[in-house]
Amino acid sequence: MTTVAKGAEQDKPLQRLATLLTRLPGIGEKSALRLALWLARADGEYVRALSASLLEVHEQLRLCGICCDLCAGEQCERCRDPRRDRSVICVVAQPQDRIALERSGVYRGLYHVLHGVLDPLAGVGPAELKIETLLRRLDGEEVEEVIVATSPNVEGDATALYLSKLLRPLGMKVSRIASGVAVGGELEYADMSTLHRALADRRVL
Amino acid sequence: MTTVAKGAEQDKPLQRLATLLTRLPGIGEKSALRLALWLARADGEYVRALSASLLEVHEQLRLCGICCDLCAGEQCERCRDPRRDRSVICVVAQPQDRIALERSGVYRGLYHVLHGVLDPLAGVGPAELKIETLLRRLDGEEVEEVIVATSPNVEGDATALYLSKLLRPLGMKVSRIASGVAVGGELEYADMSTLHRALADRRVL
Repeated sequence: MTTVAKGAEQDKPLQRLATLLTRLPGIGEKSALRLALWLARADGEYVRALSASLLEVHEQLRLCGICCDLCAGEQCERCRDPRRDRSVICVVAQPQDRIALERSGVYRGLYHVLHGVLDPLAGVGPAELKIETLLRRLDGEEVEEVIVATSPNVEGDATALYLSKLLRPLGMKVSRIASGVAVGGELEYADMSTLHRALADRRVL
Repeated sequence: MTTVAKGAEQDKPLQRLATLLTRLPGIGEKSALRLALWLARADGEYVRALSASLLEVHEQLRLCGICCDLCAGEQCERCRDPRRDRSVICVVAQPQDRIALERSGVYRGLYHVLHGVLDPLAGVGPAELKIETLLRRLDGEEVEEVIVATSPNVEGDATALYLSKLLRPLGMKVSRIASGVAVGGELEYADMSTLHRALADRRVL
């Protein structure tokens, strides 16, 4: 039994909520208890809306049949949008990466969400990712370029390399997002790997 | 409209949940989105349990008729427990303070939850706290000592002072929890106010 459960032993509903909240990512026992106490005294309408919204998200959200992004229907808004450039597919690891890119407003092509990156140590191989779906998709549509936008770390780079080896034989242009010192960042505070990458990928002006 | 709402515009249920989650204390827009995405892909049974628990906490929890602590019935377990020492009442600001004290296991008396501390700048006067209920309670029961366990900061100290002035004329012994350098803490890292208090409240050995 956790410390939260012990401390709140005599307040069953509060204890149950706190214990459930500790399962959320980034929420520890103290935060869970604080949230539970806050929720117990929160506006009734808000708590009912939150409760309903949780169920709704879980029941309505599924993976888009084309790009595997989370969406409420059969296909996501982006895949259905005729104004989007259908010749480019940007491959990302998670839905939040797609949201971040979309928010920047610079990309108007389509996406593909892998739902992870290759990570052999954690038992994540190509079969665990939505790579099969990506291949099937490339077979039908007239895609000219696949931009691999996984994060620039070991797993993200390995995934990008794997995809480029897989897709280049199909006559596809495969590119990788640039990485280096962040715009607005200080050279002084950049870590060694970032500086290494920034130098290696330097551009002629 | 918030950034979350804009970014997730096309995923209505996700957007709604993220917007609702940002209202929780300590949860910003990025955390809310991360939690919403995690919840969208979480185990169905867990999400249903969390949704139900939220409603349950809100519907079942009310204030104990005696000590004003949060509880599921008319009176909390502590007020109903005949083994507790009914001659001492420990006054705390919030339910979480009561939980922290109870967890320490050293106190076996009763509690009283004020639901706040005196804070004139924030518009919290004696009428906003459960002081009236405390007075009514002291009138009936045979209480010998009231321990004021509000936090040792300006508002907590002011509340303690106010209560002692109010209760001492009633022939009640009013005490305050000790404050000073935390047990196991390093003198070197203690802040100035704590050192000041530790010196002022020194005990003869």
